[in-house]
Amino acid sequence: MKKRIVVALGGNALGGNLPEQMEAVKTTAKAIADLIEAGHEVTIAHGNGPQVGMIQNAMMELTRSNPEKYPLAPLSVCTAMSQGYIGYDLQNRLREELLDRGINKGVAMLLTQVEVDPKDPAFENPTKPIGAFMSKEEAEHLAATRNFTVMEDAGRGYRRCVASPKPVSIVEIDTIRALVDADKVVIACGGGGIPVTKDGGNHLKGAAAVIDKDFAAECMAEALDADFLIILTAVEKVAINFGKENEEWLSDLTPEEAKKYCDAGEFAPGSMLPKVEAAMKFAESKEGRSSLITLLEKAKEGIEGKTGTTIKK
Amino acid sequence: MKKRIVVALGGNALGGNLPEQMEAVKTTAKAIADLIEAGHEVTIAHGNGPQVGMIQNAMMELTRSNPEKYPLAPLSVCTAMSQGYIGYDLQNRLREELLDRGINKGVAMLLTQVEVDPKDPAFENPTKPIGAFMSKEEAEHLAATRNFTVMEDAGRGYRRCVASPKPVSIVEIDTIRALVDADKVVIACGGGGIPVTKDGGNHLKGAAAVIDKDFAAECMAEALDADFLIILTAVEKVAINFGKENEEWLSDLTPEEAKKYCDAGEFAPGSMLPKVEAAMKFAESKEGRSSLITLLEKAKEGIEGKTGTTIKK
Repeated sequence: MKKRIVVALGGNALGGNLPEQMEAVKTTAKAIADLIEAGHEVTIAHGNGPQVGMIQNAMMELTRSNPEKYPLAPLSVCTAMSQGYIGYDLQNRLREELLDRGINKGVAMLLTQVEVDPKDPAFENPTKPIGAFMSKEEAEHLAATRNFTVMEDAGRGYRRCVASPKPVSIVEIDTIRALVDADKVVIACGGGGIPVTKDGGNHLKGAAAVIDKDFAAECMAEALDADFLIILTAVEKVAINFGKENEEWLSDLTPEEAKKYCDAGEFAPGSMLPKVEAAMKFAESKEGRSSLITLLEKAKEGIEGKTGTTIKK
Repeated sequence: MKKRIVVALGGNALGGNLPEQMEAVKTTAKAIADLIEAGHEVTIAHGNGPQVGMIQNAMMELTRSNPEKYPLAPLSVCTAMSQGYIGYDLQNRLREELLDRGINKGVAMLLTQVEVDPKDPAFENPTKPIGAFMSKEEAEHLAATRNFTVMEDAGRGYRRCVASPKPVSIVEIDTIRALVDADKVVIACGGGGIPVTKDGGNHLKGAAAVIDKDFAAECMAEALDADFLIILTAVEKVAINFGKENEEWLSDLTPEEAKKYCDAGEFAPGSMLPKVEAAMKFAESKEGRSSLITLLEKAKEGIEGKTGTTIKK
């Protein structure tokens, strides 16, 4: 039975530099092609942690080499570049994997902006370290001249910290929908999307923030009226009492059960917690919607109910 | 009367760094919005010379800072990044300009690969200098280890040279067409597209090359069955005897007349010549197709037949 699926891929599953990425996308492409070959409609969102870090390092080195000509590129611009950088390899490899299986289906990477609320409480307390390590002098200069929040990072130098606000809406959703309806495989919301805020008028302003890709994928899944949100990660199932003697792997959860475990502090913030929260939000949003958290390689089996953690009303 | 139009924008019209680009896209967005407001369907291709140069410089600085972790990024990857970098500003500003005029129409940037022929004679003689200036040692190292063609550039240091082959086909053309048919404004073939070659199978390999954006736009205009190809540049009309006493500005040309002037060496290679050649090719490709070469700000008047150089059978 054909399902409309949104898949969220981790940035860490895409490799920390170019040779790693070219290898990593092979496994990723196979897992996604399995879903498409099974007849499903698939749209892909992905993280960009290591990749946008690399691009920010490069842009910082460029600024260091010629500060007059090249003022430091804003994070939103680096995210836009990372969408091109990752999308190129991912789109290419997925296209090839599909053709190798005799499936002739267009794969498209759409530049995506995601609206966030400038009043999101996350902006009051930027906690997500990003980009290159800096000297104290550099960090203080950027804090003074560019209003950056900087933080000393475990004796390794200074890093910039940004907010991680929740997605409100996807600016390019109509375009994404037009392509999904035309039976294309769409890669969108790369790195959680380029975060932008509205100024009251029609202008969108790039925000110094990163959006969690699981929440961006959830937002896109609701907007596309998907049947399934699949969050791919490094474990086959979600566990409670993780790493302890009484560790328990979970197969089926209601949103209420998931919430109970979240509230009890069962899941690590910045790691499993946002995945379970995003999965829970989607499952709660409408009757018949399911979320699945599992390993990349197990996506197809998970959809068939054979493994993974499914959250459903 | 509604026309399907492909517009080719010069990379130089987009600014050499980020603040310049943010300014430049304002003018560009107005010119394109004029065409859309007049009821036309517009698809945009653009150059990326200064922008991909900036990104290559940044990636070269990154490699210099940590060669083990970050081997030098191939040109194709830098072009992919430049599509994200330019597309973000251009799409955003055009969206805003349209909304300010009460036009609610999706604007999309699609990552685009363009197939070139590995036997294109351009590969035998790479002449297009790109990216950062290097020391003799760096240049010789890259020539030896990465098979780069390098060239001493007017006493300013060494630069890499790449080929500029002709586009054969646009890999993502079905996706572009699906969006154009869904009445979206599409930005595609950024920087002339990411050049790729086929290996006989389904694999696409990034090529060390840059595709002229005018030829990429022409290729896309044919594939979309456009009515008009508009090449925007720094002069209002094409001239013969350019800069001489008997300089003559041309308003209407047949492809035959254009070819005669090309053969007579009237147009500068790498500047006006590829524009006239691309315009000529489109006008010749099918009855009823017109090409227009004019200033960015005159695009709308040009379409109305009031200025610019029109090439038509």
